[in-house]
Amino acid sequence: MILTVTLNAALDVTYFVDSLVPRTSHRVDTVHERAGGKGVNVARVLSTLGRPAVVTGLRGGDTGDRLRGELRTAGLRDELVPVAGESRRTVTIVSREDGDATVFNQSGPSVTPREWEVFTERYTRLLRDADVVVLSGSLPPGLPADAYAHLVTLAREEGVATVLDTSGPALRAALAAGPDVVKPNADELAAVTGHEDVADAAAALRALGARTIVASRGPDGLHAITPEGSWRATPPERLTGNPTGAGDACVAALAAGLATGAPWPAVLCEAVALSAAAVLRPTAGDFDADAYRRFRTAVPVEEVHAARTHP
Amino acid sequence: MILTVTLNAALDVTYFVDSLVPRTSHRVDTVHERAGGKGVNVARVLSTLGRPAVVTGLRGGDTGDRLRGELRTAGLRDELVPVAGESRRTVTIVSREDGDATVFNQSGPSVTPREWEVFTERYTRLLRDADVVVLSGSLPPGLPADAYAHLVTLAREEGVATVLDTSGPALRAALAAGPDVVKPNADELAAVTGHEDVADAAAALRALGARTIVASRGPDGLHAITPEGSWRATPPERLTGNPTGAGDACVAALAAGLATGAPWPAVLCEAVALSAAAVLRPTAGDFDADAYRRFRTAVPVEEVHAARTHP
Repeated sequence: MILTVTLNAALDVTYFVDSLVPRTSHRVDTVHERAGGKGVNVARVLSTLGRPAVVTGLRGGDTGDRLRGELRTAGLRDELVPVAGESRRTVTIVSREDGDATVFNQSGPSVTPREWEVFTERYTRLLRDADVVVLSGSLPPGLPADAYAHLVTLAREEGVATVLDTSGPALRAALAAGPDVVKPNADELAAVTGHEDVADAAAALRALGARTIVASRGPDGLHAITPEGSWRATPPERLTGNPTGAGDACVAALAAGLATGAPWPAVLCEAVALSAAAVLRPTAGDFDADAYRRFRTAVPVEEVHAARTHP
Repeated sequence: MILTVTLNAALDVTYFVDSLVPRTSHRVDTVHERAGGKGVNVARVLSTLGRPAVVTGLRGGDTGDRLRGELRTAGLRDELVPVAGESRRTVTIVSREDGDATVFNQSGPSVTPREWEVFTERYTRLLRDADVVVLSGSLPPGLPADAYAHLVTLAREEGVATVLDTSGPALRAALAAGPDVVKPNADELAAVTGHEDVADAAAALRALGARTIVASRGPDGLHAITPEGSWRATPPERLTGNPTGAGDACVAALAAGLATGAPWPAVLCEAVALSAAAVLRPTAGDFDADAYRRFRTAVPVEEVHAARTHP
């Protein structure tokens, strides 16, 4: 099975309004609530693909209870570990006028050292049945910046491959532990390495310890730098819609590819097709199944040779 | 005691962000939660003034449980009646950059006829010990537009004076039941009567059944049209701050005035002083006690004679 870790799981709340006008009052006509956090979304995608996935991470308070109920409804195996603090909510305001989304992210519960210890015990136990572990999203307050580094090391000790999707200090600190795949987007990559060019930035990440970098370039697709070679994969069509779940769908495809040992070009083709199919659905964790079937035979994957010379 | 009714009680959540930029993601650094709804805020103000107040209305679900906990913390007597639906949240985004607030109001739980019947039984029992009842805010879905009319009639039968602070169809439908005081703001007054002029609009409301109209004109103070005469009361200073709690502070003063039988000029003086002191505090239900003491001796109240002639 694929184990997904969401240390800062959230109740994702969406408010629909006619139009967002700062400094005014809005009547919210529809409210959607759903268990979220990147790892939860990855597990949803895997589960829809028919791949067994287990959700772990941290949850607390009334909001944590609601999260659990939501995961049960979605049919996902819930191995979230309780903490004393309250799980966060994210609030997304969607304007009916233009479909635009404005997002408010709480920082999450403060986690104590003892709670972190209890979590790592559960995680180590779950690793025994895992083929791949996905580490996704931000760290809640109280956790050390090297929390993901520790989880990568524990996975390596159990011989379990890791896919890491985070940013900033949490990403930087995890590299030294040698994650198998990191999936930054172009902005995150530039922020962590200081290089605007994707190839230069990826080379810098590899020098810091990551084995494979799959950089997402939004509507331009993926650029993968792996020990076996480098590839670019591009979506078969220009798509408009909701980009928030595309990264999670991509991570789901990377994890599934690692689990089966598929060659990189095939994995990237799947990752681009799933991401593109996710853009067509308004909710992260969903994808358009028909579009996915159509796209997966139509994604151009091109090998990139290190032909560039650096003066 | 003064009974305050909040049929659509809410958990008021405030998110502080650096600056609100539509179509982007925001990190929320601070979250405040507090029991709200206009009637709850009125009870807070009364309680701070040392006047016994009881909170009734409807509450449901996890959010309703949190509301109760919050009322207990605030030392308010909680007589909220449970419903099966979930109490609403309001989310206010406050920008640290300029202090501006952007508000999102959920519509509230759907209330069944049986739940409404249970509520009116509790309400009738609570009326026995009440001097004045305050009916504040919007109606949750499922309640008939004449819900406040029914509550005004029940209060009248028990000889309890009523202060009504609502808008739109709920206000219009309640007038025929003859509430003692209605407190619309200028916009609400114009929307319900079609008259832009406050005196004309107030005369229209009185013709529909209200005894006294206290119209709030924001920073220009109050304009009261009563069976004993008409007065204008103006704040002693131009104030900037949070206007959201000013109306609730005004209603608290009106209810306290009705309870003691004070003459209208004295009541209006108190109402303007309390409203102005509430503008100085960032949270509805609070007021600046020092400013209140200073303002209450400095509010000009001017009698308005019906000198206008209508051609």
